[in-house]
Amino acid sequence: MREDELLRHVYARNAQLQSRATGGADVLIPPGDDMALVQLQQRNVLIATDQVVEGRHFVRGTSMRAIGRKAVLRNVSDIAAMAAVPSACVAAVALPKGTDDAQVLELLAGLQGASEEHGCPLVGGDTSVHAAGDSPLVVTVTVLAEPGPSGRVIQRAGARAGDLLCVTGALGGTLQADGSGKHLEFVPRVREALELMSALGDSLHAMIDISDGLGRDAAHLARAAGLDVEIRAESVPCNSAVTWRRALSDGEDYELAFACAGQPPAKLGDVPVTVVGTFVASRTPTGGACRVVEQGTWHDASTLGWQHGDAQ
Amino acid sequence: MREDELLRHVYARNAQLQSRATGGADVLIPPGDDMALVQLQQRNVLIATDQVVEGRHFVRGTSMRAIGRKAVLRNVSDIAAMAAVPSACVAAVALPKGTDDAQVLELLAGLQGASEEHGCPLVGGDTSVHAAGDSPLVVTVTVLAEPGPSGRVIQRAGARAGDLLCVTGALGGTLQADGSGKHLEFVPRVREALELMSALGDSLHAMIDISDGLGRDAAHLARAAGLDVEIRAESVPCNSAVTWRRALSDGEDYELAFACAGQPPAKLGDVPVTVVGTFVASRTPTGGACRVVEQGTWHDASTLGWQHGDAQ
Repeated sequence: MREDELLRHVYARNAQLQSRATGGADVLIPPGDDMALVQLQQRNVLIATDQVVEGRHFVRGTSMRAIGRKAVLRNVSDIAAMAAVPSACVAAVALPKGTDDAQVLELLAGLQGASEEHGCPLVGGDTSVHAAGDSPLVVTVTVLAEPGPSGRVIQRAGARAGDLLCVTGALGGTLQADGSGKHLEFVPRVREALELMSALGDSLHAMIDISDGLGRDAAHLARAAGLDVEIRAESVPCNSAVTWRRALSDGEDYELAFACAGQPPAKLGDVPVTVVGTFVASRTPTGGACRVVEQGTWHDASTLGWQHGDAQ
Repeated sequence: MREDELLRHVYARNAQLQSRATGGADVLIPPGDDMALVQLQQRNVLIATDQVVEGRHFVRGTSMRAIGRKAVLRNVSDIAAMAAVPSACVAAVALPKGTDDAQVLELLAGLQGASEEHGCPLVGGDTSVHAAGDSPLVVTVTVLAEPGPSGRVIQRAGARAGDLLCVTGALGGTLQADGSGKHLEFVPRVREALELMSALGDSLHAMIDISDGLGRDAAHLARAAGLDVEIRAESVPCNSAVTWRRALSDGEDYELAFACAGQPPAKLGDVPVTVVGTFVASRTPTGGACRVVEQGTWHDASTLGWQHGDAQ
């Protein structure tokens, strides 16, 4: 499909986008120009970009709609991690040569569907076609968001010694051997993050979404604060048939991990919240160690979890 | 290189970014969190995304620094096309497996250098590594911008019958047979676009940056207005050793093409402005034809130029 034909499908939604407020942003210039123009509620804007790459984040043969959805959802999960409100998104796709039109439209439907469900309308994009048919599909989404009603956002840094480490939902086993699983279809915790900030106020100190595995992501929170973090293995909420070790290392959970002073709410809507550990003074100058205790035995968990972009 | 090591290089610039206003945006939360937070001058924000793909926009072996620069520059060119002011950008890179660290840092230096030169600091990013070493490098940049002092931006639509079609600079021959050329290193016309808006005011009706070739991009302006456009071949400013046909079709010029009522300034700073044609009532219901007249002979030019994303 030629880019202008593809864009015609995007344009077909213009009238809709122009005539209503979606999420935090009004779309003043919709897709089809050199840039889109959106009007925010305020002058502070958050931005993040994240890509899904064939062979790394999904296998060839995964439904194009699911790929488009995942590309949006993992970005919206970054919005949740800041306890922010979605505004708008754009997407760039690099397609294997010869990708047929129906597939491209499925991808677009996935991008548009997921973005609209989360109040984050797709306002622009770019398509390229690889020189070869066996080159990997790459879908890159960039999201804009705004701070919520309090004006505050939650960063990775801010945990204090004695804070509790808590997680939403259950962890592990998101990626099945055949490439299917929860990593393709999950609900970013945007609503829960806002509820959490509302419930905890200034006691909510730091937050991250779990994409690299709780072991690594808890270590990120600890390192950002110059602390270590200790996790009790038996308290980790695991998805069925998943060991604590996998729950800490699998990644792609897209649940929230956060540091707070005092007990968090037991639930956010229907989503359980579990206290799994404690931030402690670091044994090293830099901090960032994540230790797991299981029946009195300590394990180093900060190297569990996977690293996006690891070339080794 | 692992993503966290790469990010450490990005973080090294944090203090700089935090301590000064760059472009239109102050960076309140710099790279390293789930999202960056920037403060704009106003609530209206422009966004565009554009990628450079190995084998389509550059050849393997091109300097990584040049690739990073091009990825930023062609996005900044979109900002110029709206006559807007750069605010900030983010970048996502999908690297061939085994790309060595020095190469990754060169790419980053290109991204950071070009973005800072244009007041558009790199505030976030994502790195992935392909499963294979021969998979194409993909660099996706998303830019934010704000309307300039007048609050107005220039869209593709808006040309009127009788308007002049004008271009900045000289066209054609930007891509050499060995992959080198101006397409890798050009100056996006941000300053010129703002000067033009200031000089022409409401007489500046529509604008686009020339990425697909003047033939196609002039046709885009015409179609957006339901008009046709006619170009005089002998008036097209061509780079040396370039015919008018190539100047209309090569693409990747990243000059401005615009529609205005009455004569434009002859120069914007050092950059010449040339009147090359006229918008006319369309012969068809949709418009969008671009015709070139050369010594009394008419040519159809709307199919000259190349189409990004053409899979055929």
